[in-house]
Amino acid sequence: MTYCLAIQLNAGLVFASDSRTNAGVDQISTYPKMHVFNREGEYLLVLLSSGNLATTQAVVKRLEMDACADDDRPSLRTLRHMSEVARYLGRISMEVQHYHRELLGDSSVNFEATFILGGQLAGQAHEMYLIYPQGNYIAASPNSPFFQIGETKYGKPILDRVIDSSVPLEAAARCALVSMDSTVRSNLTVGPPFDLAIYEKDALKIARKLHYKQNSPYFASLRKAWGEGLHDLFLSLPRFDWEAADGKPSIRGPGDADE
Amino acid sequence: MTYCLAIQLNAGLVFASDSRTNAGVDQISTYPKMHVFNREGEYLLVLLSSGNLATTQAVVKRLEMDACADDDRPSLRTLRHMSEVARYLGRISMEVQHYHRELLGDSSVNFEATFILGGQLAGQAHEMYLIYPQGNYIAASPNSPFFQIGETKYGKPILDRVIDSSVPLEAAARCALVSMDSTVRSNLTVGPPFDLAIYEKDALKIARKLHYKQNSPYFASLRKAWGEGLHDLFLSLPRFDWEAADGKPSIRGPGDADE
Repeated sequence: MTYCLAIQLNAGLVFASDSRTNAGVDQISTYPKMHVFNREGEYLLVLLSSGNLATTQAVVKRLEMDACADDDRPSLRTLRHMSEVARYLGRISMEVQHYHRELLGDSSVNFEATFILGGQLAGQAHEMYLIYPQGNYIAASPNSPFFQIGETKYGKPILDRVIDSSVPLEAAARCALVSMDSTVRSNLTVGPPFDLAIYEKDALKIARKLHYKQNSPYFASLRKAWGEGLHDLFLSLPRFDWEAADGKPSIRGPGDADE
Repeated sequence: MTYCLAIQLNAGLVFASDSRTNAGVDQISTYPKMHVFNREGEYLLVLLSSGNLATTQAVVKRLEMDACADDDRPSLRTLRHMSEVARYLGRISMEVQHYHRELLGDSSVNFEATFILGGQLAGQAHEMYLIYPQGNYIAASPNSPFFQIGETKYGKPILDRVIDSSVPLEAAARCALVSMDSTVRSNLTVGPPFDLAIYEKDALKIARKLHYKQNSPYFASLRKAWGEGLHDLFLSLPRFDWEAADGKPSIRGPGDADE
């Protein structure tokens, strides 16, 4: 499995991804799922991928090759709008999937892949798209400022609580790491190292790109502060009305309170 | 969908359930998913259910009818061990599912149901079982002190962080409510009102049974304290090393830090 997320803010974009790939519990590998495409002054694009690893690798390779071609084929170099790039990516994903499905002649194998594409083209606003396995795509918006792919549920509550478009870049990046940590604790198929990228709008280059192992100093300090803080917060929660005023739990006989 | 959870502690058992039932977004109803079976001094059992509502209702009705029979058929009244009750429940669940599948003659409809059964029989220890849709079952243990059914992922991280067998009953009950709140915020198919039951071991009767609406005073105060506490905790997290010492976020040009 995989867990990737990206956040679209007024100030820019934040991307985070894990790197665990598994095909059964005996076949666990580490692959980065964050790919950066950058031609300074022209475009900066970050791609996060989940799903069939062969499909996502073939799609990334195709993007790279198209961008190096010296003709006018659609590519990261020639397209002028983010929505066109999303459509182009969706088409390539479908071509790769169709190719392998026909080659195999067996529709029971899942070649699907899902992508998050975020970034900016010169002269355009920064944008973010989710590209479905079927090749279609949706854009992020102030009402839907984050996308997740892969094992998305464990890490969603903290995003729901904290993220809106006005959050500063670093705060959103911290939230992404907390979301990643919550997922890793509850699901074995998501694992370190983690990649984190921060894009400041209009820069057309990555502001910060970080790579965290489980024991990297900053990530470890964040996990510790969050874990201990949650425990303290939990202990500080309001008591049920029948609990002793000193906070010592006590159940004093039966009751059928109905608030 | 549904979200139910139960926690087995040294001190007893805690049960929580939502009450939203849906068959498509146009058909949303409220049904309690917590059923208490109690003959004082003989047995106290709490059943949480998820899955096909017709199946779970038929199973509950069958348990009630069997317990009222004056012969020696297997029932809550005649069985002497929790594991026997789990097996009995699994068998009834399969009988109900088989009956409706054969009646319909169509295997594409899902009649499955999943149950959590917890409680105590006179002279035995308090125990808790998860009964799968296939009729088999597993017991909770000190290493696996909680079970969840339905929409389980959103509310799992807080349980993973807080719950172990030594946690007091009321603290575990608070944790169950926080887990429920996190799920409700992130998923529309889980909704209030919520039922909460606390069982103190060896009592053979429920210590506390509470029913919370979204705006019930205690649940509202818990949600508020948790939400505000999370925000404060989030703001207190350690800053990236490039952020200003005063905590004001700032990105000062490109970097490629690799911790």
